[in-house]
Amino acid sequence: MSGPDLLTFGEALVSLRSAGPLTAGGALTPHLAGAEANVAIGLARLGHRAAFAGRVSDDELGTFLLRQLRAEGVDVTHVVRDPGRPAGLMFLERRTADLTRVLYQRAGSAGSALGVDDLRPALAAGARVLHLTGITPALSAGAREAAGWAAETAARAGTLVCLDVNHRSKLWSRDAARAVLTPLAGHASVVVASDDELDLVGAPGADEETLVTGLLARGVSTVLVKRGGEGARAYTADGRRDAAALPVTAVDTVGAGDAFTAGYLSGHLDGLDLAGRLRRAVTLGAFAVAGHGDWETLPRRDELSLLDSRQPGDTLR
Amino acid sequence: MSGPDLLTFGEALVSLRSAGPLTAGGALTPHLAGAEANVAIGLARLGHRAAFAGRVSDDELGTFLLRQLRAEGVDVTHVVRDPGRPAGLMFLERRTADLTRVLYQRAGSAGSALGVDDLRPALAAGARVLHLTGITPALSAGAREAAGWAAETAARAGTLVCLDVNHRSKLWSRDAARAVLTPLAGHASVVVASDDELDLVGAPGADEETLVTGLLARGVSTVLVKRGGEGARAYTADGRRDAAALPVTAVDTVGAGDAFTAGYLSGHLDGLDLAGRLRRAVTLGAFAVAGHGDWETLPRRDELSLLDSRQPGDTLR
Amino acid sequence: MSGPDLLTFGEALVSLRSAGPLTAGGALTPHLAGAEANVAIGLARLGHRAAFAGRVSDDELGTFLLRQLRAEGVDVTHVVRDPGRPAGLMFLERRTADLTRVLYQRAGSAGSALGVDDLRPALAAGARVLHLTGITPALSAGAREAAGWAAETAARAGTLVCLDVNHRSKLWSRDAARAVLTPLAGHASVVVASDDELDLVGAPGADEETLVTGLLARGVSTVLVKRGGEGARAYTADGRRDAAALPVTAVDTVGAGDAFTAGYLSGHLDGLDLAGRLRRAVTLGAFAVAGHGDWETLPRRDELSLLDSRQPGDTLR
Amino acid sequence: MSGPDLLTFGEALVSLRSAGPLTAGGALTPHLAGAEANVAIGLARLGHRAAFAGRVSDDELGTFLLRQLRAEGVDVTHVVRDPGRPAGLMFLERRTADLTRVLYQRAGSAGSALGVDDLRPALAAGARVLHLTGITPALSAGAREAAGWAAETAARAGTLVCLDVNHRSKLWSRDAARAVLTPLAGHASVVVASDDELDLVGAPGADEETLVTGLLARGVSTVLVKRGGEGARAYTADGRRDAAALPVTAVDTVGAGDAFTAGYLSGHLDGLDLAGRLRRAVTLGAFAVAGHGDWETLPRRDELSLLDSRQPGDTLR
Amino acid sequence: MSGPDLLTFGEALVSLRSAGPLTAGGALTPHLAGAEANVAIGLARLGHRAAFAGRVSDDELGTFLLRQLRAEGVDVTHVVRDPGRPAGLMFLERRTADLTRVLYQRAGSAGSALGVDDLRPALAAGARVLHLTGITPALSAGAREAAGWAAETAARAGTLVCLDVNHRSKLWSRDAARAVLTPLAGHASVVVASDDELDLVGAPGADEETLVTGLLARGVSTVLVKRGGEGARAYTADGRRDAAALPVTAVDTVGAGDAFTAGYLSGHLDGLDLAGRLRRAVTLGAFAVAGHGDWETLPRRDELSLLDSRQPGDTLR
Amino acid sequence: MSGPDLLTFGEALVSLRSAGPLTAGGALTPHLAGAEANVAIGLARLGHRAAFAGRVSDDELGTFLLRQLRAEGVDVTHVVRDPGRPAGLMFLERRTADLTRVLYQRAGSAGSALGVDDLRPALAAGARVLHLTGITPALSAGAREAAGWAAETAARAGTLVCLDVNHRSKLWSRDAARAVLTPLAGHASVVVASDDELDLVGAPGADEETLVTGLLARGVSTVLVKRGGEGARAYTADGRRDAAALPVTAVDTVGAGDAFTAGYLSGHLDGLDLAGRLRRAVTLGAFAVAGHGDWETLPRRDELSLLDSRQPGDTLR
Repeated sequence: MSGPDLLTFGEALVSLRSAGPLTAGGALTPHLAGAEANVAIGLARLGHRAAFAGRVSDDELGTFLLRQLRAEGVDVTHVVRDPGRPAGLMFLERRTADLTRVLYQRAGSAGSALGVDDLRPALAAGARVLHLTGITPALSAGAREAAGWAAETAARAGTLVCLDVNHRSKLWSRDAARAVLTPLAGHASVVVASDDELDLVGAPGADEETLVTGLLARGVSTVLVKRGGEGARAYTADGRRDAAALPVTAVDTVGAGDAFTAGYLSGHLDGLDLAGRLRRAVTLGAFAVAGHGDWETLPRRDELSLLDSRQPGDTLR
Repeated sequence: MSGPDLLTFGEALVSLRSAGPLTAGGALTPHLAGAEANVAIGLARLGHRAAFAGRVSDDELGTFLLRQLRAEGVDVTHVVRDPGRPAGLMFLERRTADLTRVLYQRAGSAGSALGVDDLRPALAAGARVLHLTGITPALSAGAREAAGWAAETAARAGTLVCLDVNHRSKLWSRDAARAVLTPLAGHASVVVASDDELDLVGAPGADEETLVTGLLARGVSTVLVKRGGEGARAYTADGRRDAAALPVTAVDTVGAGDAFTAGYLSGHLDGLDLAGRLRRAVTLGAFAVAGHGDWETLPRRDELSLLDSRQPGDTLR
Repeated sequence: MSGPDLLTFGEALVSLRSAGPLTAGGALTPHLAGAEANVAIGLARLGHRAAFAGRVSDDELGTFLLRQLRAEGVDVTHVVRDPGRPAGLMFLERRTADLTRVLYQRAGSAGSALGVDDLRPALAAGARVLHLTGITPALSAGAREAAGWAAETAARAGTLVCLDVNHRSKLWSRDAARAVLTPLAGHASVVVASDDELDLVGAPGADEETLVTGLLARGVSTVLVKRGGEGARAYTADGRRDAAALPVTAVDTVGAGDAFTAGYLSGHLDGLDLAGRLRRAVTLGAFAVAGHGDWETLPRRDELSLLDSRQPGDTLR
Repeated sequence: MSGPDLLTFGEALVSLRSAGPLTAGGALTPHLAGAEANVAIGLARLGHRAAFAGRVSDDELGTFLLRQLRAEGVDVTHVVRDPGRPAGLMFLERRTADLTRVLYQRAGSAGSALGVDDLRPALAAGARVLHLTGITPALSAGAREAAGWAAETAARAGTLVCLDVNHRSKLWSRDAARAVLTPLAGHASVVVASDDELDLVGAPGADEETLVTGLLARGVSTVLVKRGGEGARAYTADGRRDAAALPVTAVDTVGAGDAFTAGYLSGHLDGLDLAGRLRRAVTLGAFAVAGHGDWETLPRRDELSLLDSRQPGDTLR
Repeated sequence: MSGPDLLTFGEALVSLRSAGPLTAGGALTPHLAGAEANVAIGLARLGHRAAFAGRVSDDELGTFLLRQLRAEGVDVTHVVRDPGRPAGLMFLERRTADLTRVLYQRAGSAGSALGVDDLRPALAAGARVLHLTGITPALSAGAREAAGWAAETAARAGTLVCLDVNHRSKLWSRDAARAVLTPLAGHASVVVASDDELDLVGAPGADEETLVTGLLARGVSTVLVKRGGEGARAYTADGRRDAAALPVTAVDTVGAGDAFTAGYLSGHLDGLDLAGRLRRAVTLGAFAVAGHGDWETLPRRDELSLLDSRQPGDTLR
Repeated sequence: MSGPDLLTFGEALVSLRSAGPLTAGGALTPHLAGAEANVAIGLARLGHRAAFAGRVSDDELGTFLLRQLRAEGVDVTHVVRDPGRPAGLMFLERRTADLTRVLYQRAGSAGSALGVDDLRPALAAGARVLHLTGITPALSAGAREAAGWAAETAARAGTLVCLDVNHRSKLWSRDAARAVLTPLAGHASVVVASDDELDLVGAPGADEETLVTGLLARGVSTVLVKRGGEGARAYTADGRRDAAALPVTAVDTVGAGDAFTAGYLSGHLDGLDLAGRLRRAVTLGAFAVAGHGDWETLPRRDELSLLDSRQPGDTLR
């Protein structure tokens, strides 16, 4: 098959990071952001062939986004440049040492105008895995349609479909999300959610066991529950398996969930068993939280064991 | 009269300045920008009471804008916070040493949603001078209506109305601008334009003399033509008067026109004759181009003579 | 009453912050500092009308200080510009991760030359609360007289007087401080002190209970004891009430005491009961320690609950 | 043909740029550098398919170099990672406003270990143009052999070979360079040299006319002489053609010659006549000198006319 | 005696520190580094006369290194400038919050070309203490010979010789190191090692007690075992003494071992007993880890008690 | 003679440089400043033995100053640390591209408290040249006495005394300066002044020829008149000699006069004739103006010819 190992699509954003309160007016550093781009980079760093599709503004900021994706070796052949819409932006403010706050300016952006036709060439090329998130359907009616179409098309073609719920409360309500994501999950083989997101792909307020049972019954083969510093849980037909988080000093949790998913999918592409896939998932999550940036500190393949048996403050020389 | 010396209104923007190409991803520094805000600050620095009105987003970026205006002593009592629309943004890229490029992301912004009702309280409070620019009518139908209403209301109340043409080709065409600005100029006592903007308040392609004659005939008492490094010309019923630019090293021309206008209006408020008003206009213009930023280097009153009889490289100590 | 909610006075300093050892010569960032200015900003951010009085140098640095106060919405109408004295400075060096060191250059500064006449207009305008600290009397004989006069005048006019002991060992000894602050406390309704400062407004070495009893007996209605990461205690005629600190990651404790006081006074102005005042006090203290800067991270009113029920690393989006 | 439009090879360096004297210890910013990489990027920005070959260290710095090349869309498929040799470095110090100084640490680097075998796959894939510089043969005996082999192989295959003399006096003497580069020029269709380099591909000290005549006689079809701010001259069988430099403010001349060459080759690939090729050459040179960085300010295709008919200080908005 | 209190020699490196991943291309800050230079600075800061010898490149980077040593008051009279070899470099990357990674580019450097003749004048001048590390013998055969000659010469002259094992796994293997360092330790009075380095001066894999016994039997009078956050142990003929680490927040452990050694040697020079020497050793180690940089945060003599009885977040003012 | 080649004394200041207006609150970078320190560094860079004497605060800022002087190889053995007075400060603001403004905070500083006793040891050690400036007598009565005593003592001992008038209008008036400096010049062999300072060591308003004649008559052997970008003039008993400035792009003129003086004195110490001394003087002046900083860009001896026959934009590689 000539397609990439992983195909993902969604909105790539320019994240403008502020070291202190935005109102103080300090310098902002631009970064590529977006859950799907994070996953693509996570896989590309490990040597997998990853492709990203979507709409990107045809201006300097859009070019910035593509430069970053290309720098990381992500295939952007199927990205569509949109000459009439601006780049989606987010301001990421470190409000306190423990609390990060996001301000979106993405309404009407190029990325939100995604449509089915934008994805046709990429889907036609095929891929071993298709990854999508619950953010895309929140962007516009067209993006919602495109996400559904892509999931269904890929599933029908035998591609493994992975859905990360990724609820964004500033984009839509939990009820609105549930109404869209629950049917979408029906196309997925792998569903990823943090523990408070699981009932967005099932009955509101149901407990984890009930929700997982329902998903497995609907054809999902693996449900991954992200639990932050406490690790993760995987549910399959064979039951439940837990994985502890790696003991690292967390300095920036943004992107950790995407790193986790990338690690899991990398393990899948490498043919690892569930324990191995989970191990890689929590390893990538650990790299993500142990450094600043959404994806900048993710490991190359030769670095996968770097966090094993280290002491705080170690120096490699 | 309890109102301020100057009232102005329009869109205050967050200008994100990049020291190099935007695509390279270097740090961006946020600045308050906007032609009308620049004029208000220019006057406040000289000790005049200046007020700014308009809509500003009710988020961190809007608060940043108000912090800057307040820091400069501009009265923001009549600014309306808009909880549902984002801040208008511009990316300002130093593309080459000689060429600056602006990327706007202001469509649908809080500032563009300006309406007549937003301006009623400020107009009711009165002012000696009302300043507006040709940017505001380009933002939205509502803003266009608000600008016209304010100009007419102020003129009727005997307030001196100043209009700076300020054509923004990324917002509208010359024809669209002319259709709106020509009638608007009819309410103005002072019209300011760069030499290539003058036919936006008159017949397309007409020569300067014809255009000025037409404006004076329509009740404009002073027409100011900005000519960059070559200085400026003023036309009144008494004829034409030229003013040379001050000989300074220009490092950033953004904001120079607004500084010029602020200097002129300051001279008016101080009761200077035309020569004195022009002298102050080109002095403020010189301060603007001699330092970085749209308004950051404008002079306080005790600094007005700072650029006189100086040699390059002088140190005051 | 036309006066502000809070009037405070004292020395506003330019704090030059160094990220590492001063001797290494790294860049310094200027900040507005001063315990009283911190309190004024804390209240202004919450929507109270706060005014600051005092002497500020009539140069670029003094203008910097006023720009910051105005940016935060603090009324500086009654600030006196001093053309003959420089700005007070402090160098703030992060000596180690846990230890911050201050180097003052404030002897002979504009702020230290404060006198009774400087405060008359502000006192005449009235206020609901007058806040002063034990720093002002340490600056000069004139400042000492002015502090005493203001406290007495305000108390006589029925204004609630709040005194924060704020001992600065680099300015005067504990004995010298005690001799001045003990009588000053007699004009106060609210006395704020850290636990090792309490005997500067009473008998040297006495225990907390004895000292509090003495203060209450002398007419103080509330004694607030700041205990850093362990929270705070309030004593009134009704007895003692403890408040725990909010569980946040502390990165910069400078300004925490002032934030605490601002929170308490905000609660007072809002008519909260003692529990509510203390809750707001520790909340503002938490914001102060959870971010860098003396006051930069203090909350706006809509942010007051931001630290409640958060997990480390949370992202709001 | 499946090969790229341009193939080039050589050493990609990490350039550590210092804003002031190196001895003062200010921050250094890493940049991708290297004459051949500059040419590849110049072409890729204009939409040509450009490929870079060579050896790059298999460490963090080598990865940095590849990230930059990929970001710019340069094909690095045929780059060989060298696990045993470090990245070549250069320190670039702005010694005075007019004078830049380079300190190389490239002896024994991965790039200098280039050999014929490293280039075989890239040459086998073919290309419309092969570009090489006189730097590569200065790096090592192996690199010298590789350069000669590649030029000869490509010429034989009918690929247009372009040689830029690019003398580096810190790497070898003029005599040593001449002995190697003169025969190498015999394989080239296009020879590029600054006016003081021309006699490195001919008789020492000969005048320009004699040298050009000799080159044309040896089969070179075009000789391009770079003359800095005075423009350039092209010699062909049809005689001589001059091109003036574009009038821009020069802030950084590093990389200007490579930009010139990239512009010329882009014109060739687009099928322009000599005048058009020269026009594009001086246009790219102007972009290079008008901004900071070796290649960072080079134009995309839609920017090619950006410097035409501009005034200093223009703002596009 | 006219010689310094301490003489040390070795390679001074330019350490280029990166705040994030090197591949991301952020700014690098140059620092003087090198275990021996760290020790010299540690002693000079405490008022001891410290001298550094070795070879340093005769270029801008070498001058940078000497500027730093001189700034700290280290005598560099006997440093030899090497006109033909470059400065040794290291890139120091903060890979994660807990893990620092070093990339050396020091092969063939000026410092690695150290020879016996370079050290003759410094040894002839004499010193109370000679300090050397196990890094120098790893640099080259000449440096190995020089280290051995210096240790032997000094020991014979009655100078106290201190050897810090300082194994660098990127420079040589444990077996290679052991073969060289074991005989070298025979010249030392004081041997310093981290707990996993101790068997590099004795039998591979032997336990601590056995190894210490062996060293004492061979004439070493004191063996110091560094145990990071757990403190240190000293062994002498009188038995074993433990010292706990000071309770500080560790932000950068690079240089901590050198600081420890400097503290111990300072105590020796001041005539302190073993407990006092250890106390000073762990004190300097605490300063090193509590701030950023290899040596930048080491204490002056008047600061030695600064970390005693402090609370996290204390401010001295 | 065991003394240094040059002895100078005066106040070393911490100069806090701002890239933009001080009121905007941007970062400040600390630099060592002071006319005499600049001269000492200029000579030390050229390999002369230079010593600086004076009082320096015994705090972090004083230590910063000494670190800088030591880094440059200036002997600070005779500097006195003052435990009771702060460091002298200056804020250096780039007000416009052409105009720099200084704000002093040096009243009561350690440096201003200089007295005769502080200088005795340094004078006793002797030197070939004693350099002093007209700034020192402006600092305090004690400093005035010390300057006079030192000039007289040195002259009597046969040391060449050099006086640079260096009028600082923010410290004293022209009349006050003249009254002190005119007699002081009587001890000098070399008097340096800019063309508008010359009548501060003679009759007010007298022309250059008259003033020079008077100085020569009073025993001054050489009068040097600095004329900025127009070069300099030297007057001796043999008449007048002019030297043109080197053609460089001037970016920062601060320190240029001191560099000029250092160059002249270096030529004197090297035994050059007047033409050679002037040539070196204008060469150092050119280095000073061609880069940022008071002394940071001064040349080492091997760089003296670096500015000869260069073109703007040259790169040395």
